[in-house]
Amino acid sequence: MTAGRPIDTHEAYVAVEREIGLLLRRSRAMSTRLARELHPELDGAAYGLLALLADAGPLRATDLVVRLGLDKSTVSRQVSSLVELGLVSREADPTDGRAQVLTPSPEGAARLTRIREARRERWEEDLSHWPVEDVARLGDLLGRFNRLGEAQVRGTAAP
Amino acid sequence: MTAGRPIDTHEAYVAVEREIGLLLRRSRAMSTRLARELHPELDGAAYGLLALLADAGPLRATDLVVRLGLDKSTVSRQVSSLVELGLVSREADPTDGRAQVLTPSPEGAARLTRIREARRERWEEDLSHWPVEDVARLGDLLGRFNRLGEAQVRGTAAP
Repeated sequence: MTAGRPIDTHEAYVAVEREIGLLLRRSRAMSTRLARELHPELDGAAYGLLALLADAGPLRATDLVVRLGLDKSTVSRQVSSLVELGLVSREADPTDGRAQVLTPSPEGAARLTRIREARRERWEEDLSHWPVEDVARLGDLLGRFNRLGEAQVRGTAAP
Repeated sequence: MTAGRPIDTHEAYVAVEREIGLLLRRSRAMSTRLARELHPELDGAAYGLLALLADAGPLRATDLVVRLGLDKSTVSRQVSSLVELGLVSREADPTDGRAQVLTPSPEGAARLTRIREARRERWEEDLSHWPVEDVARLGDLLGRFNRLGEAQVRGTAAP
């Protein structure tokens, strides 16, 4: 793509923006598919919620609202579906007996693990068509890009 | 990162997966911030919905459900908020007078354009700390990664 001619800065910026946009749309579509594999009645938001509980839980519903950036009624509805399907349990918060925390049930955790393993296999199958040097370079560049963004978020006031 | 020692394939895969995960979480957090800039009562899903209508609209509510991978009641609620705030208009579908299509109002389109410009400026400010060769390389690698994934989605049956 860049061989032999000077790089157009604007074009390079637009390409990164476009490809990240594409990646995000593909990822949302994949979350939807993963949620249906988890349970046919679940949508992409429910998959993200269960994955967050597995990685960072137990959490209160109010923490989920903040971390997922969804509104309270959406989160309540997703949580109720997950509890009704037996994939998430409500427990008393050990730090405050009047509050409740949410955690994946053994069944929810097991289904999530199976789906994540299947996703990782598809993922590694995709990457296996690439020279490992390119995979390493992509990881490195994305990592530096993420650090730039984080420094920016920390270093500036609200936009 | 990779200079002077052999690349560990597994480590390279894990790094790409981790950095894409981080990018997605940052992007969701940014959608939430952008939605609040659009209107203090909106959440991240509403921002995505308005952006989709601006890029691909007019669309029926059922198309939004499919394209966003959210459930019907979440989409209805977001659409109602956007209509009440005067950011989205309902119109008769020109191909079927009994159906309705959704489109950004002039006010909704103008607010979205302002926010996208502000986002692009922040974005270019982030990238400006990088040599343009690295920006071009990231765009190129992400583009090839996206094509791989697309070929995979087209080439295989449902998982």
